[in-house]
Amino acid sequence: MRLMIEADLDYALPEPADILLQVEVAAMADQRLDEQSLTIWSDHPIAAVVGEEGIGQRSWARGEGRFVAEYRATVTIDRPPVDLSVLKSTPPRAIPGAVVPYMLPSRYCQSDRLEGFVRRTFGGLSGGAMAQALLDWTNDALVYRAGVSEGSTTALDTFGSRMGVCRDYAHLLVALARAAEIPARCVAAYAPRVEPPDFHAVVELWLDGAWRLVDPTGMATADEIARIGVGRDATDIAFMTVFGSAFYQRQRVAVTRLA
Amino acid sequence: MRLMIEADLDYALPEPADILLQVEVAAMADQRLDEQSLTIWSDHPIAAVVGEEGIGQRSWARGEGRFVAEYRATVTIDRPPVDLSVLKSTPPRAIPGAVVPYMLPSRYCQSDRLEGFVRRTFGGLSGGAMAQALLDWTNDALVYRAGVSEGSTTALDTFGSRMGVCRDYAHLLVALARAAEIPARCVAAYAPRVEPPDFHAVVELWLDGAWRLVDPTGMATADEIARIGVGRDATDIAFMTVFGSAFYQRQRVAVTRLA
Amino acid sequence: MRLMIEADLDYALPEPADILLQVEVAAMADQRLDEQSLTIWSDHPIAAVVGEEGIGQRSWARGEGRFVAEYRATVTIDRPPVDLSVLKSTPPRAIPGAVVPYMLPSRYCQSDRLEGFVRRTFGGLSGGAMAQALLDWTNDALVYRAGVSEGSTTALDTFGSRMGVCRDYAHLLVALARAAEIPARCVAAYAPRVEPPDFHAVVELWLDGAWRLVDPTGMATADEIARIGVGRDATDIAFMTVFGSAFYQRQRVAVTRLA
Amino acid sequence: MRLMIEADLDYALPEPADILLQVEVAAMADQRLDEQSLTIWSDHPIAAVVGEEGIGQRSWARGEGRFVAEYRATVTIDRPPVDLSVLKSTPPRAIPGAVVPYMLPSRYCQSDRLEGFVRRTFGGLSGGAMAQALLDWTNDALVYRAGVSEGSTTALDTFGSRMGVCRDYAHLLVALARAAEIPARCVAAYAPRVEPPDFHAVVELWLDGAWRLVDPTGMATADEIARIGVGRDATDIAFMTVFGSAFYQRQRVAVTRLA
Repeated sequence: MRLMIEADLDYALPEPADILLQVEVAAMADQRLDEQSLTIWSDHPIAAVVGEEGIGQRSWARGEGRFVAEYRATVTIDRPPVDLSVLKSTPPRAIPGAVVPYMLPSRYCQSDRLEGFVRRTFGGLSGGAMAQALLDWTNDALVYRAGVSEGSTTALDTFGSRMGVCRDYAHLLVALARAAEIPARCVAAYAPRVEPPDFHAVVELWLDGAWRLVDPTGMATADEIARIGVGRDATDIAFMTVFGSAFYQRQRVAVTRLA
Repeated sequence: MRLMIEADLDYALPEPADILLQVEVAAMADQRLDEQSLTIWSDHPIAAVVGEEGIGQRSWARGEGRFVAEYRATVTIDRPPVDLSVLKSTPPRAIPGAVVPYMLPSRYCQSDRLEGFVRRTFGGLSGGAMAQALLDWTNDALVYRAGVSEGSTTALDTFGSRMGVCRDYAHLLVALARAAEIPARCVAAYAPRVEPPDFHAVVELWLDGAWRLVDPTGMATADEIARIGVGRDATDIAFMTVFGSAFYQRQRVAVTRLA
Repeated sequence: MRLMIEADLDYALPEPADILLQVEVAAMADQRLDEQSLTIWSDHPIAAVVGEEGIGQRSWARGEGRFVAEYRATVTIDRPPVDLSVLKSTPPRAIPGAVVPYMLPSRYCQSDRLEGFVRRTFGGLSGGAMAQALLDWTNDALVYRAGVSEGSTTALDTFGSRMGVCRDYAHLLVALARAAEIPARCVAAYAPRVEPPDFHAVVELWLDGAWRLVDPTGMATADEIARIGVGRDATDIAFMTVFGSAFYQRQRVAVTRLA
Repeated sequence: MRLMIEADLDYALPEPADILLQVEVAAMADQRLDEQSLTIWSDHPIAAVVGEEGIGQRSWARGEGRFVAEYRATVTIDRPPVDLSVLKSTPPRAIPGAVVPYMLPSRYCQSDRLEGFVRRTFGGLSGGAMAQALLDWTNDALVYRAGVSEGSTTALDTFGSRMGVCRDYAHLLVALARAAEIPARCVAAYAPRVEPPDFHAVVELWLDGAWRLVDPTGMATADEIARIGVGRDATDIAFMTVFGSAFYQRQRVAVTRLA
């Protein structure tokens, strides 16, 4: 699968501010960057640093008055689908130290508050069967609806409201998986057919020794997802983190399947 | 049903503090106070004021160093059981203005966050049938366990953790009922067989023109509950509100069925 | 002072929903309604019920697909300015039972979390002197900025961010006052020169036996404020509470000084 | 400085549970383990995995009915004091990618909510001068008091309450530092003279190219702190994370200066 990706950001800044941008597709074994350019209008030097877990990169910029950035890329994705349900269960003691942080609760994925629900509802399951059950449950229990969640909305909020956008689906699945002692992380991505078009958020579950990519919204298949970065929750995978205030002016994300 | 009630409080205060006490059984048509005494050890004047909705009373005290209070009462309760399920539904526009605040979310009963769950799970129901379904669901979904919730635990937390004590049961049922557009309030009470013995928290649902008392923990029947006060959530029905810090030294609540 | 008030609401509803509207100016001794009309486009009956504390009124409506309402009023306000700083302190035990709930924390005004700050910063003050100090502090510490707070923003959030709109100012002042054992409530209002024009939120502090109206943003003087309703926080004084989802289409509030 | 460390844990488990333990002193250049033993009573295999950032280690255990562990160590610490105030400021773009996550808000350190306060109060400062000012402010603004905070207490709560224990001091300083664009992390540690004796929590600030250890409570000097592990907040540095419920039975931490 080949994707053409375009992302344009335009924000107003009431005061000068440092900005951490994370919009570039990560070069990885299962997704190859054919072409890529990131343009940031700024009088200040831009610096790229490696992303979390050594995946992808973030760029530091400084904005004054207005912040405008443009990203263009063509990516070839070669990622077979994975059948979660057959993957083996891993006892906690066999989970590598570097993966353990993804079993812990985080700000938007309060897995410690969802353990009771997971145990009472999915008590007999483990490993891939548990993961598949949680993925199916999340997809079924939620209604996709834009405009009902805010920046501060958490997995627990979504567990109650039963609606939200990709970010909310991702947070809830990640929280449920961690509550089931399955390491889980959030993934920023580009994917076609996201409605309304925007940056996409999906999930990786650590099962049988590797991270497995899934989209709890069901919008994208594994070979349509171009990963940008990974992290514990929306905090880590935000496309833009402003140290100060920024106001939306205009934003456009377009992802087109080339073949 | 006659109850003998004993409550002893003993708290340490690092600094002098105003204390709002709410431990006295309310005199009401369906519960008659046979005897009652409240003793507060203090060099400062004590003043009683009427409780919320004109039910029961609160006492202002001032504590220095240590705060000790002792309450004794004998109450006769005459309250027939109510079958919620047959009660008629009331359209919102027929709900009196004074009852409307009990349809709104509050700090510990974030009903606005649970509307999605209630609609998707109990969508076809209304009135008493809805109330009975929510009461049964709460009683069944939760496990009674002391020591797992904190002072800051909310209905949404309990909705995820699926465990807690009477206060958590009450908060969750109140939040679910409000999400279903049924007015609901929390009730502080005394009841026998609460385990471990403590102040009890139950719920009143406004159905078919009146408040209906229910115990979502299933511990007490309607004729065993002696109401202290009512309010939106634990904030309003706390047995003790300290403006400052207080540390638990000793507390005892004993409720005995006399006949 | 005479004010001409116009408010137009236009919301889209993905599903039919009950709506509680609170936009009408309350008839009170210090604000006289010269003319008033509320028009709601709906096929369902509308019902008005009395507002909290018997002040003003709320209207129940039912919306399907779209909800449009139009309010027009002319009000004469006769309210002298009040000098808070000279008002006497009231000991807690002299505060009436009906006022006590406004000393307790609420969802958006977590006064229990701000007691430490208030004591350490304003420790020697009480009564009107304390109230004036908290009003001045709030006005000075915050920067008025639209678009930085959300529906879920609390007084504690604003205490950290030091910015927000009228609702955030009101929540913070109310929380600080309650932390100082001064009863405080939020007031929905209309006022001229609110920028951007919108419903306004101000505060009433209970001092020396009466509620005293203040505007922590400093935008409006006492004789320019037409009260709609009162309550514990934004939950109670919302101009519109939807049991379900509603999406903003268009809204206009215009308040003009006639003389 | 040589420390003798003893830690005994004893918890009751209502159901069998996986437990992640993090109590061992980390072997590092500035702290040498002379002797160490960790004993866990369990019929299940124990496994140690590397801690966050490759510092120290965590142990997986499984508890049934009761969980008892005993840790003993002797540590020699050789760490000179650091004068924060003279350390140079680092522009964000020079901060390594691996350090960037410690600039982001986390569950208990909501730095994004404290930016306004930091800017308005410490606006002209940067680098070591800013760090020193925030350390001094935290130490001065808070009162050390056990029993007022809970497991869910956040930096924002402590910012309002102005009191707490080492964990609360650490959370608040970390949040303030991140709000000032200084990378900051929480550190679990042992230190003498902690009152009441317990695990200690301190802070590392990334200044002038290295992590600098500070104790915002002022209880311990740099050469008295034996680090266990590091992380974003209390989630990561907990001495025990139970996947399920556990109830405190008995716990003892004793840290003695040997020379």
